[in-house]
Amino acid sequence: MNRKGNDVIVTLADIEAARRQLAGEVLRTPMLPAPKLSELTGAQVFVKYENLQVTNSFKERGAFIKLLALTAAERKRGVIAMSAGNHAQAVAYHTARLGIPATIVMPVTTPFVKVAATRSHGAEVVLDGETFAEAQERCEALMAERNLVLVHPYDDPLIMAGQGTIALEMLEDVPDLDTLVIPIGGGGLISGNAVAARGVSPGIEIVGAQATLYPSMWNALSGERRPIGGPTLAEGIAVKDPGKLTTPIVRELVSEIVLVDEADLERSVNAYLTLQKTMAEGAGAAGLAAMLAQPRLFAGKRVGLVLCGGNIDPRILASIMVRELERAHQIVSFRLLIPDRPGVLGHIATRLGELGANILQVEHRRLFLDVPAKGATIDIIIETRGATHADSILAAFTAEGYIMQPIKPGNSRE
Amino acid sequence: MNRKGNDVIVTLADIEAARRQLAGEVLRTPMLPAPKLSELTGAQVFVKYENLQVTNSFKERGAFIKLLALTAAERKRGVIAMSAGNHAQAVAYHTARLGIPATIVMPVTTPFVKVAATRSHGAEVVLDGETFAEAQERCEALMAERNLVLVHPYDDPLIMAGQGTIALEMLEDVPDLDTLVIPIGGGGLISGNAVAARGVSPGIEIVGAQATLYPSMWNALSGERRPIGGPTLAEGIAVKDPGKLTTPIVRELVSEIVLVDEADLERSVNAYLTLQKTMAEGAGAAGLAAMLAQPRLFAGKRVGLVLCGGNIDPRILASIMVRELERAHQIVSFRLLIPDRPGVLGHIATRLGELGANILQVEHRRLFLDVPAKGATIDIIIETRGATHADSILAAFTAEGYIMQPIKPGNSRE
Repeated sequence: MNRKGNDVIVTLADIEAARRQLAGEVLRTPMLPAPKLSELTGAQVFVKYENLQVTNSFKERGAFIKLLALTAAERKRGVIAMSAGNHAQAVAYHTARLGIPATIVMPVTTPFVKVAATRSHGAEVVLDGETFAEAQERCEALMAERNLVLVHPYDDPLIMAGQGTIALEMLEDVPDLDTLVIPIGGGGLISGNAVAARGVSPGIEIVGAQATLYPSMWNALSGERRPIGGPTLAEGIAVKDPGKLTTPIVRELVSEIVLVDEADLERSVNAYLTLQKTMAEGAGAAGLAAMLAQPRLFAGKRVGLVLCGGNIDPRILASIMVRELERAHQIVSFRLLIPDRPGVLGHIATRLGELGANILQVEHRRLFLDVPAKGATIDIIIETRGATHADSILAAFTAEGYIMQPIKPGNSRE
Repeated sequence: MNRKGNDVIVTLADIEAARRQLAGEVLRTPMLPAPKLSELTGAQVFVKYENLQVTNSFKERGAFIKLLALTAAERKRGVIAMSAGNHAQAVAYHTARLGIPATIVMPVTTPFVKVAATRSHGAEVVLDGETFAEAQERCEALMAERNLVLVHPYDDPLIMAGQGTIALEMLEDVPDLDTLVIPIGGGGLISGNAVAARGVSPGIEIVGAQATLYPSMWNALSGERRPIGGPTLAEGIAVKDPGKLTTPIVRELVSEIVLVDEADLERSVNAYLTLQKTMAEGAGAAGLAAMLAQPRLFAGKRVGLVLCGGNIDPRILASIMVRELERAHQIVSFRLLIPDRPGVLGHIATRLGELGANILQVEHRRLFLDVPAKGATIDIIIETRGATHADSILAAFTAEGYIMQPIKPGNSRE
């Protein structure tokens, strides 16, 4: 690693060297045009599918470069990392391949699936600490006690150089990109790729994407003190402290940081899935979310998105998909107040069929206080062709004398 | 198109010519190793991502080759196709690109989303017929009336040659495959690719995958008369009549047809999504389903799967994902019979937390006939680490005197 003074800790040459080391060790992922995302955003979008790596995120690149730089003695003693997510799996996978002992510290709150995935590669998982800060303490204690090398998730020139190989591949496949949009957590991914991309294409614009709930790099660059915290779909970039090494590079090379809120993230995860047929985790979809949040920044440009990870809980993904259908009024809930006598439900169901609606769920209630003693409510969830169709169904029932009101998705599910 | 007698209607040379014509017109899709699917199946699996085409299926290849072969007069008059699915979108998309008028006949039962997707490319959609046979009649009538060229979904040498370009790309990227597994509907995809693959690699084995509910090619080759019909997740290969032109090629070049049932298809769609982070429709996952259904056919081999389409209804996909979590006992439902007094629910919820279970849904019932007048039932859906964890929770509650029984997913959801 060349260090040319304090402020140049990663160079294009470092990243080119990392790329040679990675050949055959991680997947050279596809970089493909995404016409439906182009239509959605008004830009010309290309996607780099880092979710197709073995552990389904870009983290393998940096981890491998770091591991390869260890001395023989360090390899023998082993490494340690603190992560509840993609970094943990990347370190576990590549230490196993290279025969290096690995200890991974995870907070006790880490989801079962992620613990199991990390253990499955053979790493020793130490569950400790209610918070990341507590797990961090345990990590530092174990590192000292066992004399292990820390594989930091971002604040390390070798990690940054490894991640930066993504932009080299993107620009090799599509040389004339105007803009790269890259998610920011600690800043490892964007700093490495900013150095690489600007090294190869000096005029290219680098835009960062950060969750509105975790604007840590935004704060570091702007001097603002926006609040940080809360449950975000993009837990992969929910980082409170940006890197000491990454921040100066972001300050120098990144032209803009776009903050994306949870609705943008959900919409982007859903767009990747339904339009592009690929699975993005919240952090992996943050670049697309930035384009949806501020389309004018990107209109008409050739934009490269790094789909940096695909590890999303299937239950959460299923819920996002259904919520998006509700937002598009393709799944609509209605409540009808009806007289409590035989045949009414049959009539309603028949009419819905005639009106072209597909019934998904019916709940018939006779026992609540807000219903007249001789009445009942029916909550019906139907599938429609969209908002216009849903409105016409409501109008038809109202014209026939039913007391029918839409139940907003916000009330029932959000 | 060279026709060398009746029995050689598509040659390797035809497919190589088609490949030159397709350059720059359809995506040269990625062909990538799938280590997690390899682990799942015990083979070495490579996936060809045809779901990344603009209309998210391989159908564009054959359609484009057919359209390119039209005379100037035919182009001007236009084409017609009958399809409720991927073929419709492929024809609509490429006729629009080439400025050829297109009429697409769809049964009236076609889902809204598919009609809209086809119309969005500018094709005239004619909705007619309750069944495919009725829509077929209307298609033939319109074709005659308007003097249009039919773009058949499979039974046409040009279509077969276009589809066959997939195998050329697969073997260019991974030359030493032992086996290709290819879904069979009418047989266009497998016949073209069998000719291509055997032309390039004479020793390669071609295995077909067909839905157990629609064993039409199986019947044609074996002389059996297995029943055909029923609702399948793989509607893209739910074809009653295999092609007259495709069947002899399948008979000659395909070594085995594997019938896959609905559970195999669901499991494969889920595996593509959760392990490989990509969206496969039922027919698109049929090749993987064949590997899961008959793993011994593929053990240890280098297998190429054609992920031929990704157009699956988001609601159905969401439901598959949740059902698979239930099958893995990561989502478990219990019914508890409890005394109807204050505090019991609170105690149960607290104990579940202590036992490491995450509560997803609670339903408290006091009013059913099968509950003692002074009692109540609680149905609880929880998230667990898997079957062992679920069993230990059941044991703990039973030991504490609760009457608790698991509710099988089959009863409640299937």
